[in-house]
Amino acid sequence: MPDIVTGARIDLGRLRASILEMAAIGATAAGGVTRLTLTDEDRAARDLFARWCADAGLTLRLDDMGTQYARYEGRDPSLAPVLLGSHLDSVPAGGKYDGPLGVLTGLEVVRALRDAGLRGRRAIEIVNFTNEEGARFEPAMVASAVLVGAYTADFVHHRRDATGLRFGDELDRIGYRGDAANRPGAIHAYLELHIEQGPVLESENLPLAAVEGILGIRWFNVTLRGQSQHAGPSPMRSRRDAMVAAGRIIVGLRELALSYPDPVVATVGRLRPVPGVINQIPAEVVMSADVRHWTDEGLAEIAGKAEALMRRIAVEERVEIDIETIQNVPPTRFDPRLVELLDASIQAVGAPSRRMVAGAGHDAKYMNDITPTAMLFVRTIGGMSHCESEEIAWDDARLGAETLLRAALRLAEEP
Amino acid sequence: MPDIVTGARIDLGRLRASILEMAAIGATAAGGVTRLTLTDEDRAARDLFARWCADAGLTLRLDDMGTQYARYEGRDPSLAPVLLGSHLDSVPAGGKYDGPLGVLTGLEVVRALRDAGLRGRRAIEIVNFTNEEGARFEPAMVASAVLVGAYTADFVHHRRDATGLRFGDELDRIGYRGDAANRPGAIHAYLELHIEQGPVLESENLPLAAVEGILGIRWFNVTLRGQSQHAGPSPMRSRRDAMVAAGRIIVGLRELALSYPDPVVATVGRLRPVPGVINQIPAEVVMSADVRHWTDEGLAEIAGKAEALMRRIAVEERVEIDIETIQNVPPTRFDPRLVELLDASIQAVGAPSRRMVAGAGHDAKYMNDITPTAMLFVRTIGGMSHCESEEIAWDDARLGAETLLRAALRLAEEP
Repeated sequence: MPDIVTGARIDLGRLRASILEMAAIGATAAGGVTRLTLTDEDRAARDLFARWCADAGLTLRLDDMGTQYARYEGRDPSLAPVLLGSHLDSVPAGGKYDGPLGVLTGLEVVRALRDAGLRGRRAIEIVNFTNEEGARFEPAMVASAVLVGAYTADFVHHRRDATGLRFGDELDRIGYRGDAANRPGAIHAYLELHIEQGPVLESENLPLAAVEGILGIRWFNVTLRGQSQHAGPSPMRSRRDAMVAAGRIIVGLRELALSYPDPVVATVGRLRPVPGVINQIPAEVVMSADVRHWTDEGLAEIAGKAEALMRRIAVEERVEIDIETIQNVPPTRFDPRLVELLDASIQAVGAPSRRMVAGAGHDAKYMNDITPTAMLFVRTIGGMSHCESEEIAWDDARLGAETLLRAALRLAEEP
Repeated sequence: MPDIVTGARIDLGRLRASILEMAAIGATAAGGVTRLTLTDEDRAARDLFARWCADAGLTLRLDDMGTQYARYEGRDPSLAPVLLGSHLDSVPAGGKYDGPLGVLTGLEVVRALRDAGLRGRRAIEIVNFTNEEGARFEPAMVASAVLVGAYTADFVHHRRDATGLRFGDELDRIGYRGDAANRPGAIHAYLELHIEQGPVLESENLPLAAVEGILGIRWFNVTLRGQSQHAGPSPMRSRRDAMVAAGRIIVGLRELALSYPDPVVATVGRLRPVPGVINQIPAEVVMSADVRHWTDEGLAEIAGKAEALMRRIAVEERVEIDIETIQNVPPTRFDPRLVELLDASIQAVGAPSRRMVAGAGHDAKYMNDITPTAMLFVRTIGGMSHCESEEIAWDDARLGAETLLRAALRLAEEP
């Protein structure tokens, strides 16, 4: 039954079939996907996406970063288009939905409009951003970053993967280097549908959320230098043990984050003792700390407290400490009007409304710098992402597609 | 001036020259030594030791483990000899004294006796045990272990180094495979002089200690399995974070050890998060725990408490835990009469007396199974060992040699 407002009808069977066919490219035995950017698998995914777009009567463009744009023309081609996008690349042994769900739901939206003979005043373009993940070429989200001027195209083309291959050469090799002239010009709005990648919607029994922004990130590389001694003949009170200092920092950062409300987080993901042998007090421990907050002031505060905590523990444990800030990403605030529109669209398709702040980076972060932007999150089963067991419920995918359809059409109708 | 009791005189200049000449073999730029067992450097060290022994009129034997015995004959060759020993192999980038100080002080003792024309009723044999360190071929202390039947010769000969080379083949290659018939028969006593490798003597301003025993050791390999999630979108309260559990275990084990008196210790030297990336809550952390106590009951108690602590934290953090006991070495109690003799000998050379328990393993641990055994510790500057900055004071070396001379001669005079 067509949506009573849009007159178009999301075909969940078609959306599901597209997602599963896409997931077959680079499929892993355990049900996941390994489809690193600019590999043969990525080329196959792009070819498939391009074929579907051509079948749907869309016009394809390719920019100098390899980003694909598939345009469903509007009634007035002179107006700035509405962009719906995400990415088709994955992390190693990643999941079927992180990225493709956004691209293919965008495709389903225009397929539904075309089937219904509907066309917005403005064009709708489906975007597949190159290398969102940064799993093969660092940093992540380079294609949207180039669009907004955060990196130059030249910088990105010279990035190398772990085997020394260059981004630009691999773009040529798979036949997906396009033209800078094909980058979008003026953009009316950007919407990105994505799996939540966290457990909040599931725990609150909600299918969708309108995303208001993205947490700001401060990354520290912390080096603790104590005294390496044999584990046997070194009395506890005489030790200057870098591992004990690291242990206290891990626990202290967790307590610090717990002193803030959700979604403030602090994480230690990386830790390496040197020499790292069972019967030797380590001379050195190198560890990471990742703290996130949704406001500039909050991020500055928690990062300052984290640093003070680490320095205090180092003094107490009589170890030297070097704290290096290796990443400092300010919080992103999406366009309030678009967040409101997504929120209303969620309610319009009959789902309860919830706003939230994203914890991870997405191309929407950069796009927000040049056009009104917002994101729509779809519940992720068990909060699991970047892994082969990443899963969603198809009913949620349908609700997400219906929400995106309403919001996109509303934006496309704007004068 | 000759010792008024023994009539012999330790020549510190000669001892120092021997230690420094030995340290030139495998010398590192930073003042340390890399002389792994059964390498060309080890062969050169053995050759030099053998030449010195021959020059001192000692009779050399070589057993099937490559252990060298240099015999200074007694007045009654039929009596079981007194053994003074340690090792000439080192860890990579180790120090000049760990091992060689014991072997070469033993040599200095017999050089001093010979110079004075003195000879005990019993022979004194200086022993250079093969592969005390276990740095190239695991496990450690295999040569003394074979003497007491803890391992078979065949087992040891088939050990392989990291490049696949076999212990037995390398023994042949350097020309130091001797005969099982050359293993010692009955032994009257074994004394091992060694650097302390810890900071206790320095902190108490003492040059020497009589060692009563060696701490028993329990090694655990601990695997913590939580839920790997993206660091951003995972609220703190929903996490099952293996790294946080590891941090609490590190801190908890330290607190546990501090609840006991010295020299009880607990150490985490090894820790590896999987996947170990900055923005991912680890799925798994694999870590070691090393706990030591000087009594059987104490070791069982602290090991039990450590295990209970780790399991409690795992439950509280909702992570799975596997605890594997990978080493369980009971405490060693040296011969009380020999400890008393060393203690009295320390006082006799004018140094304050202190008994202590060794934290690390030594060949004396195995030798204690077949003959009355004790150790004599020499103060280690800064407690630093197994590193290139390992250092002692020469005055302490002299006091140690004078103590060993007295004790060895006393034992050699016993009927």
